[in-house]
Amino acid sequence: MWTYEKKLQYPVNIKNPNPALANLIISQLGGPDGELGASMRYLNQRYSMPYREVAAVLSDIGTEELAHMEMIAAIIHQLTRNIDPDDIKGTSFAPYFVDHTTGVYPIAASGVPFDMKYVGIKGDVIADLNEDLAAEQKARVTYDNLLRLIDDRDVCEPIKFLREREIVHYQRFGDALRHTQEKMDEKNFYGWNPAFDKKFKK
Amino acid sequence: MWTYEKKLQYPVNIKNPNPALANLIISQLGGPDGELGASMRYLNQRYSMPYREVAAVLSDIGTEELAHMEMIAAIIHQLTRNIDPDDIKGTSFAPYFVDHTTGVYPIAASGVPFDMKYVGIKGDVIADLNEDLAAEQKARVTYDNLLRLIDDRDVCEPIKFLREREIVHYQRFGDALRHTQEKMDEKNFYGWNPAFDKKFKK
Amino acid sequence: MWTYEKKLQYPVNIKNPNPALANLIISQLGGPDGELGASMRYLNQRYSMPYREVAAVLSDIGTEELAHMEMIAAIIHQLTRNIDPDDIKGTSFAPYFVDHTTGVYPIAASGVPFDMKYVGIKGDVIADLNEDLAAEQKARVTYDNLLRLIDDRDVCEPIKFLREREIVHYQRFGDALRHTQEKMDEKNFYGWNPAFDKKFKK
Amino acid sequence: MWTYEKKLQYPVNIKNPNPALANLIISQLGGPDGELGASMRYLNQRYSMPYREVAAVLSDIGTEELAHMEMIAAIIHQLTRNIDPDDIKGTSFAPYFVDHTTGVYPIAASGVPFDMKYVGIKGDVIADLNEDLAAEQKARVTYDNLLRLIDDRDVCEPIKFLREREIVHYQRFGDALRHTQEKMDEKNFYGWNPAFDKKFKK
Amino acid sequence: MWTYEKKLQYPVNIKNPNPALANLIISQLGGPDGELGASMRYLNQRYSMPYREVAAVLSDIGTEELAHMEMIAAIIHQLTRNIDPDDIKGTSFAPYFVDHTTGVYPIAASGVPFDMKYVGIKGDVIADLNEDLAAEQKARVTYDNLLRLIDDRDVCEPIKFLREREIVHYQRFGDALRHTQEKMDEKNFYGWNPAFDKKFKK
Amino acid sequence: MWTYEKKLQYPVNIKNPNPALANLIISQLGGPDGELGASMRYLNQRYSMPYREVAAVLSDIGTEELAHMEMIAAIIHQLTRNIDPDDIKGTSFAPYFVDHTTGVYPIAASGVPFDMKYVGIKGDVIADLNEDLAAEQKARVTYDNLLRLIDDRDVCEPIKFLREREIVHYQRFGDALRHTQEKMDEKNFYGWNPAFDKKFKK
Repeated sequence: MWTYEKKLQYPVNIKNPNPALANLIISQLGGPDGELGASMRYLNQRYSMPYREVAAVLSDIGTEELAHMEMIAAIIHQLTRNIDPDDIKGTSFAPYFVDHTTGVYPIAASGVPFDMKYVGIKGDVIADLNEDLAAEQKARVTYDNLLRLIDDRDVCEPIKFLREREIVHYQRFGDALRHTQEKMDEKNFYGWNPAFDKKFKK
Repeated sequence: MWTYEKKLQYPVNIKNPNPALANLIISQLGGPDGELGASMRYLNQRYSMPYREVAAVLSDIGTEELAHMEMIAAIIHQLTRNIDPDDIKGTSFAPYFVDHTTGVYPIAASGVPFDMKYVGIKGDVIADLNEDLAAEQKARVTYDNLLRLIDDRDVCEPIKFLREREIVHYQRFGDALRHTQEKMDEKNFYGWNPAFDKKFKK
Repeated sequence: MWTYEKKLQYPVNIKNPNPALANLIISQLGGPDGELGASMRYLNQRYSMPYREVAAVLSDIGTEELAHMEMIAAIIHQLTRNIDPDDIKGTSFAPYFVDHTTGVYPIAASGVPFDMKYVGIKGDVIADLNEDLAAEQKARVTYDNLLRLIDDRDVCEPIKFLREREIVHYQRFGDALRHTQEKMDEKNFYGWNPAFDKKFKK
Repeated sequence: MWTYEKKLQYPVNIKNPNPALANLIISQLGGPDGELGASMRYLNQRYSMPYREVAAVLSDIGTEELAHMEMIAAIIHQLTRNIDPDDIKGTSFAPYFVDHTTGVYPIAASGVPFDMKYVGIKGDVIADLNEDLAAEQKARVTYDNLLRLIDDRDVCEPIKFLREREIVHYQRFGDALRHTQEKMDEKNFYGWNPAFDKKFKK
Repeated sequence: MWTYEKKLQYPVNIKNPNPALANLIISQLGGPDGELGASMRYLNQRYSMPYREVAAVLSDIGTEELAHMEMIAAIIHQLTRNIDPDDIKGTSFAPYFVDHTTGVYPIAASGVPFDMKYVGIKGDVIADLNEDLAAEQKARVTYDNLLRLIDDRDVCEPIKFLREREIVHYQRFGDALRHTQEKMDEKNFYGWNPAFDKKFKK
Repeated sequence: MWTYEKKLQYPVNIKNPNPALANLIISQLGGPDGELGASMRYLNQRYSMPYREVAAVLSDIGTEELAHMEMIAAIIHQLTRNIDPDDIKGTSFAPYFVDHTTGVYPIAASGVPFDMKYVGIKGDVIADLNEDLAAEQKARVTYDNLLRLIDDRDVCEPIKFLREREIVHYQRFGDALRHTQEKMDEKNFYGWNPAFDKKFKK
C-alpha cells in the first residue's frame, strides 16, 4: 500500500498559461507511452516476477511513475489555470475544454483516452523486461519531442528531469534483464517460464 | 508523491487456486467500475477542485484505491499460482492465459482491457462529485455480484472488506457534495463553475 | 416501439455556417456525456428497474434524449451546409471532412467515435440512478462549456433549451432515487438487489 | 422527434430462462451488426441525403430499428429473469453478470461494448447506401447464425421476424440506390457529391 | 506468402513538405476506410469464400491494397521529411509529432489509431461481398474529399491513381457478387451459407 | 509492393476440427502480440529508419510476418471447417460464430478486435528497435502458452515453426540495435534523433 505526501518529486512552478501546450504534454499522462501506463505496467507486472530483486525494482519504479504522473498533472493544471473563454475560442484546446473544462483527464495528445492496450504484461520475466526497456525508450522519445516544441523554461525544467529519469529506469531494467539471464538456464533462457513451469518451482 | 510499504491494506491469504474465479474478480482491477479506474478518477479530479477539503478527500480516497488495486492484484495472483496446463485446458481461463500466462493484466471480466473512457472528469465540482457517488455505487454492485458467485471464504473476506470501503467512500463523497453546495451560491449552484469562472476567483 | 414525427422538439434555424463550431457541439451527439449515450443508457436500464414508476421515467427521458440527439444532429448539419472546400482547408474541420464529408457522425469533440464504455448499466436501481444523476450533471457541464464558446445566438438558443432539460432530468432522477429508497428496506438499502434477489420477488 | 408506445413491434414471450443464450443474442443489441448501430447509422445518415425520398426511407427504417433494439432487449431480459446465483456460477454468463447483474447492456457476443466504429457515415449518398446494403446483409447473417444455435421456439419466432425485416430493408435500400443513380449524372455518378458540391446546389 | 519488391505501384515524388496535409491523408492508411483495413478485410475474408474465383479476386485485390498502403505511407513520409521544430510548433501536426516524431503510424485523420472494428468479416459470401462493395465506395469518398483539399500536384497524382483503383475494385466485387448469385440457389440465395451449411457441401 | 504466391511459408494440414482451440490461436492473428500487428509495426517503422540496413531488415521481417499471418489464418480455417451447429452450441466458440460464422476475423483470444494501440512507432531508431525486441519476445511467450495447451501434433508443428522464427527475429533486431548504436554518437546515443534532427542530415 502507499502513503501520500503532498509534495511533488520535482517542483513545478509555471507562471504563464498555455492551454495548447498542455494538450501536447498530456500525452505523458494518458498517451501511449505516458506515466499512467508506465506505473500500471510495472506495478502489475510484479506478481509474476520470479526473482525478488526484479519485483523490488518494479515496485520502486512503478511507485516513482505515480509521482511522475502527478507532476504531469500539475503541469497541465498550471498551464490551464486562470484562463478566459477568449483564451480558448478557436484554439486547439477548445475540444478538450468542451468535455473536461480545465480538469485533468488522461488522454494522448491526439485526444484518445488512455487504454490499457498500450501496456504489455505477459507473465514472463524475459518478455516483460524487454517490454519495460521499450517503454522507457518510448517515453524518452516523447519527452525529447516535447522539449523540441517547448520554449517556456518553467515547463522545460520538470520535463528534462522526467526525461532523465526514463534513462535511469532503462538502465535499471537493463541490469534486471542481465541479472535474470544469469539466473536462468544458460543454454536456453526461453526454454521455460520460471513464473509458471514446474521445473522452476523445485 | 507516494511512498510504498510492502503490506496489503487487508490480508489476502488464498489456499486454493481457482483461475476461473480470478477471471471474474479481475473486473475490479481493470473493469468498468474497478479500482484502477477509481484511483485514476479521484487522483486526477483533484486539480480542478475549488475547495481544499474536497481535494483532500480525493487525495485520500484515490490513494486508498491504489491499495485496493493492489489487493485485487494479489487475489488474482494467488488464485492462479501453482497451476498446471491441465488446470487451464478447456477452461474459461485459457484465453487469458494465452496472452498473459499467469501475469496480472488489468481487464474487465469480459476480457476487455481497461479504458479511461469508463471515467468521467469534467472539471466541475458538482458533476465530478456526482460521478464519484455513482462510481462507488457501481463498484459496490460489482462486489455484491462477486460475493453471490464466490464460495471460498478466503476470497470472500477481502472482497467484503473492499465492499464496505466503497460504502464508506459513498458517504464521504455525499458529505463533500453537501459541503460544496453550501459553499456555492444557494440559489443556483449550477450558475457558474468555481474552478473556471472569474466570478469565483475574486 | 416509437413513432417518428418530422418535427424537432425545439426549433433549430441557423443562418451562418461554422464548421469549427460544429466540431465542438458534436460532443453532445457522440461524446462521453452526449445525447446518444444518454438515450441508450436510459432505454436499456429500464429492463432491470424493479419499480414501474422508475421504469416509466426512464422510458420518458430516454425517448426525449432521442429528440435531443436529433436536435444536435440538426445543429451540426446546419452549421456545415453550403460550405466550400476553401472554408475547410487548413481548419479544424478538415480531419472530420476527410472521413465524413458533411455527413453527421457521432463522435466526441476530440474526434473519438462514440463508445458504449461511457455508459454504466449495473442492473441495480440504486447504482443506475446514481449513474443517471451523474450523467445529467456531466451533460449540463458540457452545455455550459459550449455556451462559453458560442457567440451565435441562433446556436445558443437550442443549446440553452437542452441545458435546461438536463437540470429537469437531474431533478426527476433525484425524485426517483428518493422514491426508490423509500420502497426499499430502510435500514440497509444496499442489502439486496430487488431486480435479482429472491427476497424481493415474494 | 419520437413518441413512445409501450408495445413491442412483435411479441416476445419467453418462458424458460437461458442466460448463456442471452449472451449470444445480445450481439444484435450492441454487436458489430446489431440494431443499435443500425438505428444510429440510418438516423444520422439522413442529414446529408440529397433526395427527400431517400431521407424518408432512412427515417422510417431507422425508427423501426429502434423498435428492433427494444425487442432484442426484451428477449435478453426475459432470458435472464428469475435466475439464481446457482444458475450463473461456472457458466458463460458469469462475466456479464459480474458487471451488469441482469441489466441489459449493449455489447457484442464477444463481450466488447458497442462502438460507433462499426458504423460508416460518409456524407455521400452512393457510399452510404452501399454501407446500408452491407449492414442489412451482415445483420441477416447474425440472425441466421443465431437461428442455427437456438432450440427454443419462443426465442426463434421473434428472431425470425427480425431476420425477415432485414431482407425487406435490404430491398428498400436497393431501390433507394437505383433511384439515386437515376437522379444523378448518368455517365459518372461518382463525379460529384450532391450533398456537398456546388454543381448540385443549383 | 508474399515477395517484396522495393518499388511502389505508382511513383510518389513530393518536393514540398506539408505535415498538416500528411495528417489528413493518413486516414487512408489507418482510418475507417483506409488501405490497411482494406487489405486485412480481403486477405482474411478469403478463407470462407466458397468459390475459388471469388477467393482469387480477394487475394488479388488484398495484395494490391498492401501496395496502396505502402504508397500512402510513402506520401506521409515525404510530406514530413526535412522539417524543423519551427515547422511543427502551433500546427495541427504537433500532437502527432509528440507521440510519433516523423514516423508513420496508422491512424485516422481524427488521430484515432486503426481498429479492426471498422472491418466486417461475416463468413458469408453475400454479406462479405456487400461489405467489400461498401468499403470501396467509402474509400473512394475519402479520396474525393482529399482531392478537394489538396493543391499540390505531386500529391494529387498518386491520390487520383488510388481513387481510380477503388472504382475498378468496386466493379470487380460487383462482378463477383453477380457470379455468386448465379451459382447459388436462384429462388432464395439467403437460404443457406455455402461456407457453412452441409447442404452445400454435397 | 508485394507479389503473392499461393503457398504457405510452412505447411498447415490439420485433420481434426477444434473450434475452441481456433479461438485461442486466433490471438496470434489479431491479438496484442499477433502477426498482423507485427507486420504493420515493421512495415510502417521502415520510413523513419535512418540506416538502410535496418530498413531492409524491417522490410524483410515485416513481409515474413504477412506470411505468418496467413499461416495462422489457415490454421483457424482448418480448425473450424466441416463443423455442425451441434459442434458449436454451448461451446466457447459460439460467441465468435454468431458474428463471424466460420470466417477468419482478427481478434485476440479474449474476443477483442485487433487495435493498432498495441503497436508502437516512435520515429526513433533506438526506441523502435527496443519495441521490436519486446514484440518478438511477447509473441514468443504467446506461442509458448499455446504449445502448453495444444495436444494435436498437426497444430503444434506450424506453431513451433512460428515460435522459432520469433527467436530468430529477436536476434536480428538485437544485431540491428548494436549496429545502430555503433553508427550513432558513442557518448550519448539518445542525444539526437537521426531521423529528425538536422545534425544528422549533414
